[in-house]
Amino acid sequence: MDPFVVVGGDAAGLSAASKCRRESDREVIVFERGQWISYAHCGTPYFVKGSVDRLTDLLSLSPAAAEERGIDLRRGHEVVSVDAEDRTVTVRTDDERFEQPYAELLVATGASAVTGPFDRGLDGVFSLHGLDDAAAIDAYLAAPEEYDPDRLGDGPVDRDRVDHNAALEPPDRAVIVGGGYVGVEMAEALTARGVDVHLYQRSAHLLVPFGTAVGEGVESELRDRGVTVHTDTEVDAVVGDGRVEAVRVDGDERPVDMALVGVGVEPNTALLDGTGVDRGPSGAIRTDEYGRTNLPAVYAAGDVATARHAVTGAETWVPLGLTANRAGRAVGSTVAGDPTPVGGVAGTAVVKAFDLECGRVGLVDTEAAAAAGFDPVSETITAGSRSGYYPGSEDTTVTLVADRTTGRTLGGAIVGRDRAAVRIDTLATAIGGGLTVAELERLDLAYAPPFSPVWDPILVAAKVVNGRLSE
Amino acid sequence: MDPFVVVGGDAAGLSAASKCRRESDREVIVFERGQWISYAHCGTPYFVKGSVDRLTDLLSLSPAAAEERGIDLRRGHEVVSVDAEDRTVTVRTDDERFEQPYAELLVATGASAVTGPFDRGLDGVFSLHGLDDAAAIDAYLAAPEEYDPDRLGDGPVDRDRVDHNAALEPPDRAVIVGGGYVGVEMAEALTARGVDVHLYQRSAHLLVPFGTAVGEGVESELRDRGVTVHTDTEVDAVVGDGRVEAVRVDGDERPVDMALVGVGVEPNTALLDGTGVDRGPSGAIRTDEYGRTNLPAVYAAGDVATARHAVTGAETWVPLGLTANRAGRAVGSTVAGDPTPVGGVAGTAVVKAFDLECGRVGLVDTEAAAAAGFDPVSETITAGSRSGYYPGSEDTTVTLVADRTTGRTLGGAIVGRDRAAVRIDTLATAIGGGLTVAELERLDLAYAPPFSPVWDPILVAAKVVNGRLSE
Repeated sequence: MDPFVVVGGDAAGLSAASKCRRESDREVIVFERGQWISYAHCGTPYFVKGSVDRLTDLLSLSPAAAEERGIDLRRGHEVVSVDAEDRTVTVRTDDERFEQPYAELLVATGASAVTGPFDRGLDGVFSLHGLDDAAAIDAYLAAPEEYDPDRLGDGPVDRDRVDHNAALEPPDRAVIVGGGYVGVEMAEALTARGVDVHLYQRSAHLLVPFGTAVGEGVESELRDRGVTVHTDTEVDAVVGDGRVEAVRVDGDERPVDMALVGVGVEPNTALLDGTGVDRGPSGAIRTDEYGRTNLPAVYAAGDVATARHAVTGAETWVPLGLTANRAGRAVGSTVAGDPTPVGGVAGTAVVKAFDLECGRVGLVDTEAAAAAGFDPVSETITAGSRSGYYPGSEDTTVTLVADRTTGRTLGGAIVGRDRAAVRIDTLATAIGGGLTVAELERLDLAYAPPFSPVWDPILVAAKVVNGRLSE
Repeated sequence: MDPFVVVGGDAAGLSAASKCRRESDREVIVFERGQWISYAHCGTPYFVKGSVDRLTDLLSLSPAAAEERGIDLRRGHEVVSVDAEDRTVTVRTDDERFEQPYAELLVATGASAVTGPFDRGLDGVFSLHGLDDAAAIDAYLAAPEEYDPDRLGDGPVDRDRVDHNAALEPPDRAVIVGGGYVGVEMAEALTARGVDVHLYQRSAHLLVPFGTAVGEGVESELRDRGVTVHTDTEVDAVVGDGRVEAVRVDGDERPVDMALVGVGVEPNTALLDGTGVDRGPSGAIRTDEYGRTNLPAVYAAGDVATARHAVTGAETWVPLGLTANRAGRAVGSTVAGDPTPVGGVAGTAVVKAFDLECGRVGLVDTEAAAAAGFDPVSETITAGSRSGYYPGSEDTTVTLVADRTTGRTLGGAIVGRDRAAVRIDTLATAIGGGLTVAELERLDLAYAPPFSPVWDPILVAAKVVNGRLSE
């Protein structure tokens, strides 16, 4: 039998490979274009900030450990084409080019940062997608005489790029383009590194998928921490000769010596161009409940693939870490002979903005909920995180969205300073279980003065929304 | 129409009265035997510890605020008997005795601390159930010359009892009898007040309803913080003449100058003796899904009443704060004309033991689960609370119990130092929604390095239990 071939050695790919090896004696080959495997994307802002000591602390599985699992790991191997008829892939390395037959193929090529018009090769302009970007930014932020290469750890980092950036004078003022996760997390990281940060967001609020209440809270927190936030403002271009000198905004040139572009990601689907593969939202590879594409024996998982939305049932594209790990693992089981659904995604996400914790799940935007065929009712409440008399209680703001017709919980968001993020899991579980808001209101949630008031903020929101539903 | 009469002015009683007034123009009378109303039982250990500045900070509704809601509040009024045929109660005050007719009656008389053989009237022997106990303990712990009566705030405290205790020399060594919530919380409080604490627990582990893993974790934490823990050891008596001098254990007398008895609570049902009311577990008043007793127009709610267990469907008695508030509120709605179920209880509970956070929900004990007709599978795992590379990740231990036959999630417990308690709400929601462990494992829970690893500890436990179920 031909092997199970995986393209991409990160979350989805290695989860699939590991699971398949654990549950079968199939031959599993993983082709990874680069040198890094299995690293924590989400940790890179905290490496730049300095909370994580070494770049290699972000690796979750070493090549040696992957090989101990019986995975045939081939780094520096780029899969350049797929022949779905013949069930072969063409692989290119620095030295050779060869065909590899497969019994099943998993495309787990991930996503890349969108750089748009900003990718002009100027020094000081970065996006943050992967460990080499993180290492380069970290080096750029350090004064040449103070840069400590021990921060890199012992990994296959792009040393030329690091050395180049380490030799440059560190920036005084940075522009962040985009107020999504990366923008907000990097505002914290760059501030911690002593840079004067200006964040530009095209829309009216930061963290759009989290809704207005969270966006406003985060904007206020960022300002309090010294970040200059420009909403409703678009950055048109980066300006400079060799190194970035300014950004162009509304026809003005505003001087900066660093620009971080965080305007989103796009799925890496080029490998399947010309194969007739079906695509879904954002051009991601369309997959069914088992992660199968329309091509025979070709699966896709992780940031490159679509998924089923747990609330709408519709095809969606949500490139997030747990989704990638879980879908990869499910495909690994399926290939090993135990068909396993990849599961829906509820778009659960949490993000830290300095001391503020933010979470969201499901449908937060009522227009999106109406477009999906619901009759949404949305309420936003603020309640304490602990009993009012107990030290450390913090305002916790919850937005809760439900369907007027069925009473079903559709989505919600939360923001606060005290254990707010983890509370979104209550809503994620309610949505995963298909609970109505009336059922949510009756949940027996935990109460003790140090951790929660008698009525948890989620229950308070459920009470208010439920009251609206019975109007 | 005769009024809605409520006996008891705490969580259940005032929730019912407030809700009924808000939703109708019914006349509502609340008879409260004592002087305090609507106070936070669960906050009293933190008042003793010193984390809460004033006793009156624990009040959630003042008498004036209750009256503003249109509630006819009568403190110092003890209801001494009920005539369910005539629909009248007999009320006694210091000055008079009268009959009060009612259209509906709510018995919300709460529970009292069990004192067993320890209630000999000795100075230095306390239980902790209510604000006067908390004030007396606080006064006893202070040196006479250092006691600050401003700590009492402006409330109807039993000043004679406070003065008596404030005049006594403070204790050096305290015994806590019982390793439940009160015992564990008071071990922390008394240690913070500089007392040498010895905690005696009759059974093999502390916090029995939380299971072995939590119990062992808490025992270790208490020892690390200087508490001497004696498990499998029973205190037979308190010894002394006027003031406690020792406790008797295994025939020995061990010298102490304070004893705190926390061996449980019992429902205050005496008011209904002789009425033919049905009773359930622990002698609590049996109620149906609307909080109705078998007596016509007589409801019971809160710590005095039984409830339906969300997992077993069986009648149970779980005296906890949210249950009381919610059941009272539901009865208030029902009496106001909107029949509202009181909801099930899952026995969700959280407790703080110094820096350790503990939670439990549903059926944790496999013997209890088997007795309820399930085929329980239980696993205990330990996982990080954050991504391993992110500062502050702490071991989080989860016990998860499921039914082998149906896959249903039956219960669980959690212990850890970083946001562990709030995570029990994920399980409480899963149990409230009737999710199987397979569904639990597929939940889209939140992931970001500062708050959770890719696989939340709850998901890790679900994976392991689910693996066992498919064996």
